[in-house]
Amino acid sequence: MITIYGMVESGNCYKPRLLMAKLGRSFRHIEVSSTDGGTRAQAFVAKNPNAMVPLLEYEDGRLLAESNAMLLHLAEGTRLIPKDSYERALAYQWLFFEQYSHEPYIAVRRALLTFPNRKNDATPERLASTLERGNKALGVMEKRLSASDFFAGKTMSVADIALYAYTHMAHEGGFDLSGHPSVLAWLRRVESDPGHVPIGWLPKA
Amino acid sequence: MITIYGMVESGNCYKPRLLMAKLGRSFRHIEVSSTDGGTRAQAFVAKNPNAMVPLLEYEDGRLLAESNAMLLHLAEGTRLIPKDSYERALAYQWLFFEQYSHEPYIAVRRALLTFPNRKNDATPERLASTLERGNKALGVMEKRLSASDFFAGKTMSVADIALYAYTHMAHEGGFDLSGHPSVLAWLRRVESDPGHVPIGWLPKA
Repeated sequence: MITIYGMVESGNCYKPRLLMAKLGRSFRHIEVSSTDGGTRAQAFVAKNPNAMVPLLEYEDGRLLAESNAMLLHLAEGTRLIPKDSYERALAYQWLFFEQYSHEPYIAVRRALLTFPNRKNDATPERLASTLERGNKALGVMEKRLSASDFFAGKTMSVADIALYAYTHMAHEGGFDLSGHPSVLAWLRRVESDPGHVPIGWLPKA
Repeated sequence: MITIYGMVESGNCYKPRLLMAKLGRSFRHIEVSSTDGGTRAQAFVAKNPNAMVPLLEYEDGRLLAESNAMLLHLAEGTRLIPKDSYERALAYQWLFFEQYSHEPYIAVRRALLTFPNRKNDATPERLASTLERGNKALGVMEKRLSASDFFAGKTMSVADIALYAYTHMAHEGGFDLSGHPSVLAWLRRVESDPGHVPIGWLPKA
């Protein structure tokens, strides 16, 4: 059985859990947190030298890091990877957008405001710059979603799972989505897609 | 014919050019720079609301942003996308590593030190944090490359193209690679792979 090491409250760690739930695949969750030093512990760094969760481990010991790489890998051959070559390219585009232009601001600002171990990093300058860049990302999303039901095209894909993870908690980072009606409508579409589970969901032990 | 909008000196823009050269595919280069406001010009933002290069445009007007998405899309069906499912997953992993844990430090520190329009951002704190995080990324790469010729496995893949782009210029950002012999040997392996072109290469008009 697959093991996924991760933090229950992390959006990046939620992504592969949400995908596995949607696909009806069983897996084991092992809690490893960046807030208590778990991701920096020697035994964990031996598995992931980049010292981050989530981390996926197969029964034979093969390992895979990077939440969005897990999405592309685990969803291969399912409805969540677009069949059309260009729509698949757009799914890739939005996965990289999420990690480069969205998560470093929207997820990080939430961490600065809500994780006790990040309190010292929450300087006024850092809070201002993450707010500005996060709002820019939300604007880019609003533009896309005003023209398309989902990021890669007419149907749900792994790109929507990746962008849902932190967007649905953006208010915890002090982001106001009320000016982004297409983003709000898309959040509800993603939640209506079969097999949806909330961030707190974990597989039965 | 495909058009790629980009900056000649940007590592992110070099990635799709290097891939197209390796694949022997013709394309048109149009110079658009972030250093002179080109990426923020209205006509460009209409094409890419995220206001970044590179941007790929097909003859029929379809657009694709994100350098690593271009690599995955343009290399589909070629030797540069691993055939094995797990090696393909590792290629994905290292592409996301590049954009999240490598480029924001190694590429950004080079820009802070060499691009005149970034001079005001080059504070001592910023230079120190990008040095620390960039060196961490180089350490993660060294560990992988001490055990494997290429990032996804025994053969060259798009992950190597992505990580080569800024690693081969890391010295311009003040990074010293002499402590990373496996990274240095890998740079030479990538350069020996058929069809390699240097960053300054552009297709004939």
